[in-house]
Amino acid sequence: MKKIAVVLSGCGHLDGAEITESISALIALSEFGAEYACFAPEMRVTAVAHFGDGGTGGTRDALVEAARIARGRIAALDGLKEADFDAVVFPGGHGAAKNLSNWAEAGSEAEVHPEVERVIREFHAADKPIGAICIAPTLVAKVLGREGVNVTIGDEPGTAAEIEKTGAQHVACPVDDYVSDRDRKVLSTPAYMYDAKPHQVFAGIRKMIRELVEMA
Amino acid sequence: MKKIAVVLSGCGHLDGAEITESISALIALSEFGAEYACFAPEMRVTAVAHFGDGGTGGTRDALVEAARIARGRIAALDGLKEADFDAVVFPGGHGAAKNLSNWAEAGSEAEVHPEVERVIREFHAADKPIGAICIAPTLVAKVLGREGVNVTIGDEPGTAAEIEKTGAQHVACPVDDYVSDRDRKVLSTPAYMYDAKPHQVFAGIRKMIRELVEMA
Repeated sequence: MKKIAVVLSGCGHLDGAEITESISALIALSEFGAEYACFAPEMRVTAVAHFGDGGTGGTRDALVEAARIARGRIAALDGLKEADFDAVVFPGGHGAAKNLSNWAEAGSEAEVHPEVERVIREFHAADKPIGAICIAPTLVAKVLGREGVNVTIGDEPGTAAEIEKTGAQHVACPVDDYVSDRDRKVLSTPAYMYDAKPHQVFAGIRKMIRELVEMA
Repeated sequence: MKKIAVVLSGCGHLDGAEITESISALIALSEFGAEYACFAPEMRVTAVAHFGDGGTGGTRDALVEAARIARGRIAALDGLKEADFDAVVFPGGHGAAKNLSNWAEAGSEAEVHPEVERVIREFHAADKPIGAICIAPTLVAKVLGREGVNVTIGDEPGTAAEIEKTGAQHVACPVDDYVSDRDRKVLSTPAYMYDAKPHQVFAGIRKMIRELVEMA
């Protein structure tokens, strides 16, 4: 049985992992016979209410919140060892661009969370597949851009241009499909980079996960 | 296009709506061509951390948290009008048994949240389908039990016995299937009443939603 690590960044698209994307990935991993384990960084993040004006005045812990998606079966990201897994998947949500990096404010000049950078480098060095959903391909572009890795975030020109500044190549892709850079074993799907319906997001992620599990 | 209301109870299975169940319902509604709208009660509930010892010392608002699942597209439950929809769905999670009722502590003696009782009575009186997932069939049993409605919560004998005290009939069902009481238009599926995998939960919910949308 293939073992796949899933890196979450909280619970909710405005301050953490996008929930439909995360659950779609877990359903598909389960459907295609993979065993998965979830991880998230231990870090305080500004909480954004998803109803009303967004303000809460509080902070939450990305790991503790991500545990809601994982039904409590989750561990701190610094405990993720490449040797224990055959592939790694990063769902999207603003958490990927605010917690796992600061892409949301810095674009191609972003710094990637050190543990995320470590994980991407280790899986890539071991020739293991890396899957990235929605805005999360920016993490892979930042770390592996100099290798000219191909990724998609859909068809949003501004973000695509920022991605190409890293050296990565952006490939346009519809919501229900994915892009596979088979030489570098990097797979990506745009998901909620589009104003999409849940079953379209699920379809693209499911296809991506199917190849990722085969490749792993 | 059929319009389906989805009643959430927070975000996370220990103090709100079970996330995989909720997202599975939204994916399936979208796949089968229904339009959906999410609702949740405005109520403060004790927050239970899903990582560590569960203690947070805080409370959260069920509606504001449920908005994370619904990507902000959600309204207060008291605004849910039966006339605007063709069916209603209740995902599970402890929120269904602690926020939408107090079944978790009182079993068959539980009181159902007045707005939940109103919604179930109104949809039933209008001969519109009601779908219930995981522990949520207990809500339907409490409100419609005297009519001998058939529901499932899987095969857990204690909960099944409590359900039958309401007058409802419990029907055993595996995780990837569902029970349809076609006379009373009540559909239910056990989901995480079992220690199940995500794709099994999705399969049962998807089948239930397919018939619910057809019936609506």
